[in-house]
Amino acid sequence: MAQLVARSVRDAEVAGSSPATPITNSKFMKFRLKPRIGIIGGSIADENIIKVAEKVGELVARSGGILVCGGLGGVMEAAARGAKRKGGFTIGILPSPNPNDGNFFIDLPIPSGMGEARNTIIVNTADAFIAIDGSYGTLSEIAFALNARKLVVGIDTWQVEGIVPISKPEEAVEYIFKHLK
Amino acid sequence: MAQLVARSVRDAEVAGSSPATPITNSKFMKFRLKPRIGIIGGSIADENIIKVAEKVGELVARSGGILVCGGLGGVMEAAARGAKRKGGFTIGILPSPNPNDGNFFIDLPIPSGMGEARNTIIVNTADAFIAIDGSYGTLSEIAFALNARKLVVGIDTWQVEGIVPISKPEEAVEYIFKHLK
Amino acid sequence: MAQLVARSVRDAEVAGSSPATPITNSKFMKFRLKPRIGIIGGSIADENIIKVAEKVGELVARSGGILVCGGLGGVMEAAARGAKRKGGFTIGILPSPNPNDGNFFIDLPIPSGMGEARNTIIVNTADAFIAIDGSYGTLSEIAFALNARKLVVGIDTWQVEGIVPISKPEEAVEYIFKHLK
Amino acid sequence: MAQLVARSVRDAEVAGSSPATPITNSKFMKFRLKPRIGIIGGSIADENIIKVAEKVGELVARSGGILVCGGLGGVMEAAARGAKRKGGFTIGILPSPNPNDGNFFIDLPIPSGMGEARNTIIVNTADAFIAIDGSYGTLSEIAFALNARKLVVGIDTWQVEGIVPISKPEEAVEYIFKHLK
Repeated sequence: MAQLVARSVRDAEVAGSSPATPITNSKFMKFRLKPRIGIIGGSIADENIIKVAEKVGELVARSGGILVCGGLGGVMEAAARGAKRKGGFTIGILPSPNPNDGNFFIDLPIPSGMGEARNTIIVNTADAFIAIDGSYGTLSEIAFALNARKLVVGIDTWQVEGIVPISKPEEAVEYIFKHLK
Repeated sequence: MAQLVARSVRDAEVAGSSPATPITNSKFMKFRLKPRIGIIGGSIADENIIKVAEKVGELVARSGGILVCGGLGGVMEAAARGAKRKGGFTIGILPSPNPNDGNFFIDLPIPSGMGEARNTIIVNTADAFIAIDGSYGTLSEIAFALNARKLVVGIDTWQVEGIVPISKPEEAVEYIFKHLK
Repeated sequence: MAQLVARSVRDAEVAGSSPATPITNSKFMKFRLKPRIGIIGGSIADENIIKVAEKVGELVARSGGILVCGGLGGVMEAAARGAKRKGGFTIGILPSPNPNDGNFFIDLPIPSGMGEARNTIIVNTADAFIAIDGSYGTLSEIAFALNARKLVVGIDTWQVEGIVPISKPEEAVEYIFKHLK
Repeated sequence: MAQLVARSVRDAEVAGSSPATPITNSKFMKFRLKPRIGIIGGSIADENIIKVAEKVGELVARSGGILVCGGLGGVMEAAARGAKRKGGFTIGILPSPNPNDGNFFIDLPIPSGMGEARNTIIVNTADAFIAIDGSYGTLSEIAFALNARKLVVGIDTWQVEGIVPISKPEEAVEYIFKHLK
């Protein structure tokens, strides 16, 4: 989970002229401190995987997490659709420079313009990850996440040392929220 | 302003199994369709510029805009503080790979890990820009924004062909919202 | 191997005023058409792996290949040292924005300033890859290379579907040059 | 000009097993220590600008510099053509992930896949810059170069505080090589 360092808090107190409206941490930090959960998986997936991704998205939203994904189709779209159905917030970090390339269920598109390198931004942005199915693109994200020593739960995906394999969406999301740092 | 292409909407209808809860555009597109306003300026600024940036942030939030900035100090922090005071939403696209490097008033840090190249992501993400003061980093963002044929209003900043110079925060924000495509 | 598209060749003929010195393909394309071989592996490696990487670098240079790597220590440095000993040319695509961060055996540092995302630039630049040992960073490069449908030979490294595992440096380099497209 | 830090040199001595062939600095550092000169300008330019760019490319090559550019058409292609005519070496740092997008006169394409953000890699790679004509893309490169406190000479280009304006190719290249750090 996002933890704010002391530097930022102190900066807030000293920056510029003293604010007319008092600033309280509880007010400002509400969104910032929500866990950001990365859902990684392919843009092409079969019907069963789509259902799993949708369920995972629902559960992440119901657990109070913000959903971070690559913003395109397949697993990304299904997870975002699930999250939106339960009133969640969804971020899509896109390869193209065009925000409209984000799927219909993305609240906030971040059009990186960085192509495949945007996978590293997804990994930097989220606190923990659920990998679902996926091909080599997904494997690159798993590798970057484990390299950054972040938690990765895997559902029907690559078997890589360091991933926690869990087959059921409910257990996967529960594990993620229980083990967030 | 973000305009969704037909492709995405159609994808939403055909993707995966039919949703249990009916999906309505009005529900899902609320956040997506808010204008995203980029505030660009230096991490070091004098007291007067800080006040201007704070005022601009307040006005963007009150006008219903989402504030996008570089997430660090100076103009970026002052604008984000102003936006938060009025209940706005703030995005900080950071050079470092660490979300905690975002200032205290950033709701959503996007830690690009791309160094100065993150300026291009800011330009891709926002629909229009207000440049305030700033040095060469700000000039690079102005150049990228104009290159992408996006609207840039300038307050006390670089004079570049294509920028609309407006000195007062109220008029600058009004101009931006009036001319958003 | 780099194949030049017709567009570029035609452009060369029509661009600007006619050249005083006649342009011949053989003169200009000599370096461009050399195979670019990516050597990927960790910045920390044991003595045996270092020897293997050095041998691979030597063989790549003797086979007429240009060596592309991440420019840092360990496997990258050993391979570049081997290549330089045999008169080869070495490119180091660095995570930092500082060319001096390239190791001593790098002829041309490309300081991306993109952090870990530079792995995608290495994959885009080289025509084929030899992965040696390595940890999660190496795995991300393997994944990107396979995603781009490029040839990856693996020596004592991750076992991923699509990699061609070959244990001896001589056979690995021979295989790479034989199968270059 | 690229200056190697002591750390790298020391690393070279201690890394791995002692080399069979003695390593001499003069042998390895020959290419590395050549000045890397960035030529920045638009992909569309009139005949006069093309002639100027070609002349600048010739002079950079004859002065012993390596030419770094964006690898596409217009000023970039003309400068690379000039450099190749005089036996120089040319690097094209491309926006696309495809090395074949580099123009005919590029010896080494670096296909960043980063879109416009590749401008920052050009700035990181070269030691000093000559800007020729150009539009907003060129302005972004000038801004990044000045931000990095690197030398920028301008021929018929944007007037920005910090640029050294020189109209003749001969004087521009002479100034660059005289003032390289």
